[in-house]
Amino acid sequence: MSGRAKPEKPLIRALRGERLDRPPFWFMRQAGRYLPEYRAVRADAGGFLDLCMNPEKAAEVTLQPIRRYGMDAAILFADILLIPHALGQPLDYREGEGPVLEPIRDAAGLSRLDASAASSGLAPVMETVARVAAALPDETALIGFAGAPWTVATYMVEGGGSPDHRNTKRWAYGDPDGFTRLIEVVVDATVDYLAAQVAAGAEALQLFDTWAGSLAAPEFDRWVTAPTRAIVAGLRARGIDVPLIGFPRGAGLRLAEYRDGTGVDALGLDFAVPTTAAREKLGDATCLQGNLDPQLLVVGGDAMLDRARAIRETLNTGPCVFNLGHGIVPETPPEHVAALSALLRGD
Amino acid sequence: MSGRAKPEKPLIRALRGERLDRPPFWFMRQAGRYLPEYRAVRADAGGFLDLCMNPEKAAEVTLQPIRRYGMDAAILFADILLIPHALGQPLDYREGEGPVLEPIRDAAGLSRLDASAASSGLAPVMETVARVAAALPDETALIGFAGAPWTVATYMVEGGGSPDHRNTKRWAYGDPDGFTRLIEVVVDATVDYLAAQVAAGAEALQLFDTWAGSLAAPEFDRWVTAPTRAIVAGLRARGIDVPLIGFPRGAGLRLAEYRDGTGVDALGLDFAVPTTAAREKLGDATCLQGNLDPQLLVVGGDAMLDRARAIRETLNTGPCVFNLGHGIVPETPPEHVAALSALLRGD
Repeated sequence: MSGRAKPEKPLIRALRGERLDRPPFWFMRQAGRYLPEYRAVRADAGGFLDLCMNPEKAAEVTLQPIRRYGMDAAILFADILLIPHALGQPLDYREGEGPVLEPIRDAAGLSRLDASAASSGLAPVMETVARVAAALPDETALIGFAGAPWTVATYMVEGGGSPDHRNTKRWAYGDPDGFTRLIEVVVDATVDYLAAQVAAGAEALQLFDTWAGSLAAPEFDRWVTAPTRAIVAGLRARGIDVPLIGFPRGAGLRLAEYRDGTGVDALGLDFAVPTTAAREKLGDATCLQGNLDPQLLVVGGDAMLDRARAIRETLNTGPCVFNLGHGIVPETPPEHVAALSALLRGD
Repeated sequence: MSGRAKPEKPLIRALRGERLDRPPFWFMRQAGRYLPEYRAVRADAGGFLDLCMNPEKAAEVTLQPIRRYGMDAAILFADILLIPHALGQPLDYREGEGPVLEPIRDAAGLSRLDASAASSGLAPVMETVARVAAALPDETALIGFAGAPWTVATYMVEGGGSPDHRNTKRWAYGDPDGFTRLIEVVVDATVDYLAAQVAAGAEALQLFDTWAGSLAAPEFDRWVTAPTRAIVAGLRARGIDVPLIGFPRGAGLRLAEYRDGTGVDALGLDFAVPTTAAREKLGDATCLQGNLDPQLLVVGGDAMLDRARAIRETLNTGPCVFNLGHGIVPETPPEHVAALSALLRGD
């Protein structure tokens, strides 16, 4: 690939295992409601799903934080539920309520999904990727993403967010073979989706497993680690060698097994992971990404900056990427993001 | 104390570090809505708070699961928010919505709390403890409890349940000295409350830190470990030597630090903790309690029984108590609890 001859971007070097004196940085949900220019585009776009499916506007909001703050990576503006939507599961985003889907809880529900429809349904996302890739500064990488199958499945089964994923767990615990079929549909669609993102210009990929921590230990292996490994293997089998970041939120004591079991190149750490312990447990060879509590970005000031320095110092004994431990929240003052970015750029 | 001359109950022996061939068991929220006889008493009692404050009825619902299932311990029927209520913070339980408090978010809010009122406000709980202690079978232990200060503080500051504890974290991160005063009020009231429970007949105590996992690593030390240590020290300073169980849900990689930093006798494990890894990390001397996913109790059958056997086997290389990894949910079929209890009693 001709791109490999050019000097690699800092984010890609770090994700491939190189320790850099200035660790690259980006922030989960860096494109979002805390930015007035995002809210302006959003107000104009119709619903949230319309924004995700509008390549011009989605590319614009993807680029907004890069212009303001100069992160080392842009992350595609999209949503983890675009896959269920493209598979034919009715999806709506309601203000103040989050996503609402028609729940799938059995084989009959599964049979209503149409895997053949996914690729064309997701075509606008690829146009967004191509637009962003063409517009980014030379040194800024573009990260594509998808939800990991367990997390996507929780929304598909519950019909939205849920504090305890009771229906999903009951299906997975009570009828693991039936639930496997749902997971397989999501795995296959996700491999296609991520491969298409790379073809369109994504240079790294992150798998968000926001609800990994809600599973008991044996199910974690089966519904978090194994499907993620299947996605990694599926991408590699197609010759896709961009770095892959796994973000198994709440994995805690299971981070090393997750790394070893999935084959991801880099691990995203949630804010509950102590960075010193993580380095000790995971060694200095793995790229670790994390993990400032987004509420510290709301607080700002020295509390935020001191903690950011401490996280960077402990992670930077090996390859690392500075990030938050969860997404930026809407109440975040943009000037706090500016102050943190200035620190991380080394201004 | 004269009670110490009698042979100790299995639960107490296990919590004190003795490995038993048949591990004792109890279930978090074993008294509750899944039981028809609980719902009958509850319907009769007025509100949830009225039930907590009615010694006759609270003792009755505490004893109901013991009669049905013969657990090795009863746990006092009460609520972790009785302390804020007794300190003078208005509290209401709304059907389907959970607890609602008038939020406290600054020094002015703090000044409205009245520490001197707590003890008399909590007197009915002590009568419940005494009634249960008098009624329990000889071999069944009585566990008292309180919420740990961080978890109680999240409700006091948010004014109820919250997915991210944003106001609590912003106070704790942004004004740690001010927030310390809230924590200290809760610590002091909790020591008094637990000491009174022991005086009334509680033979072991559990501290529920349901939201321990929502804190970033350095704050975990400050707001979870340190206040728990203060409670342990406060009780020991009064000559109270009943075993203490800490349940820091979501502690993950921080379990050993929590144990060493707090001085609790036993650790409650949430269902996300792999029991084999926990034994390896924590050694065979610490009593571990846990950790079946309550959703498996809803599923029932071999999925539940096989997992229960596996958990018991891995934990039982040292002293242990079988429990769930979180509370029983209302949809649990009582016959599943019967089947699990039969397994654990060794019938």
